[in-house]
Amino acid sequence: MEPSNTLQRLRTVEGHLRGVIRMVEEDAYCIDVIRQIQAVEGALFKVSSMILEDHLNSCVITAIKGDDKKERERVLREITEVFEMSVKV
Amino acid sequence: MEPSNTLQRLRTVEGHLRGVIRMVEEDAYCIDVIRQIQAVEGALFKVSSMILEDHLNSCVITAIKGDDKKERERVLREITEVFEMSVKV
Amino acid sequence: MEPSNTLQRLRTVEGHLRGVIRMVEEDAYCIDVIRQIQAVEGALFKVSSMILEDHLNSCVITAIKGDDKKERERVLREITEVFEMSVKV
Amino acid sequence: MEPSNTLQRLRTVEGHLRGVIRMVEEDAYCIDVIRQIQAVEGALFKVSSMILEDHLNSCVITAIKGDDKKERERVLREITEVFEMSVKV
Repeated sequence: MEPSNTLQRLRTVEGHLRGVIRMVEEDAYCIDVIRQIQAVEGALFKVSSMILEDHLNSCVITAIKGDDKKERERVLREITEVFEMSVKV
Repeated sequence: MEPSNTLQRLRTVEGHLRGVIRMVEEDAYCIDVIRQIQAVEGALFKVSSMILEDHLNSCVITAIKGDDKKERERVLREITEVFEMSVKV
Repeated sequence: MEPSNTLQRLRTVEGHLRGVIRMVEEDAYCIDVIRQIQAVEGALFKVSSMILEDHLNSCVITAIKGDDKKERERVLREITEVFEMSVKV
Repeated sequence: MEPSNTLQRLRTVEGHLRGVIRMVEEDAYCIDVIRQIQAVEGALFKVSSMILEDHLNSCVITAIKGDDKKERERVLREITEVFEMSVKV
């Protein structure tokens, strides 16, 4: 994965999350807090999607072109697993 | 993909959905209808996850081992796209 | 809930799902099948959201204005439950 | 909402997220990072669900028992909106 871009985005999300914490400390309206939490979740999902894309274009290609059948199967199984988890967060 | 297993599951989902339609026709309690719709969505998601798994183990392996760079990129981009759509259904 | 509108939408979804089944029978491309399944899931979610809206504006108002504390608590707990299930389909 | 419990949970999530950032800084395996991000998303969703529950049992009850029809409609519409956003994060 391209760590610098990922890092930058995750730090932005961290700042966003601290903003949500401040909202709760200052007793903001419940629904506004929920909306901001949903925005944070959306930003996190975007990051995981970018990491997946990089992963497909690096590790997955290497594993599939390689000779290790077990490793190839493992790498492909992981893709299905993160897909399945995407709706069970 | 293994069509027979996928077909069987989709037909089961179709039966489930017809059951939901009957519930609405018979004026069932709203929350019970929502719960059954969520169960249908869950079953559909399970099918799409199985299709993805088969796809990774067939078309994706073929594309990555092949010589067509454009095709490989297309196939990998599609994986990211269905991942992103999984939470925007 | 307004059954006629809900019914109409669910029957449209049923038609859509039958189209997906035909795609699988005719051995369509995996990713195209997944995309159509995701579209069906999206349409189902829209229906459940509409049912929830009607439910809030009928049963929930009645329960909250009523004198039965247990019933009120039950109705409100159900809302949280369908919210929680919405991401675990 | 009960701010203390919500706050505690959000601060725990913040710690979790900082852990994810460290993982990326230390070049952890992509899939492990994605899994931790999904865990953070899950924890955030749990918080939003708890806030919704408190909201239903306070503001929503007050609005529905009150005389302001516009306010009641607004409060109920918000519930549907956060439900709809829950799968579009």
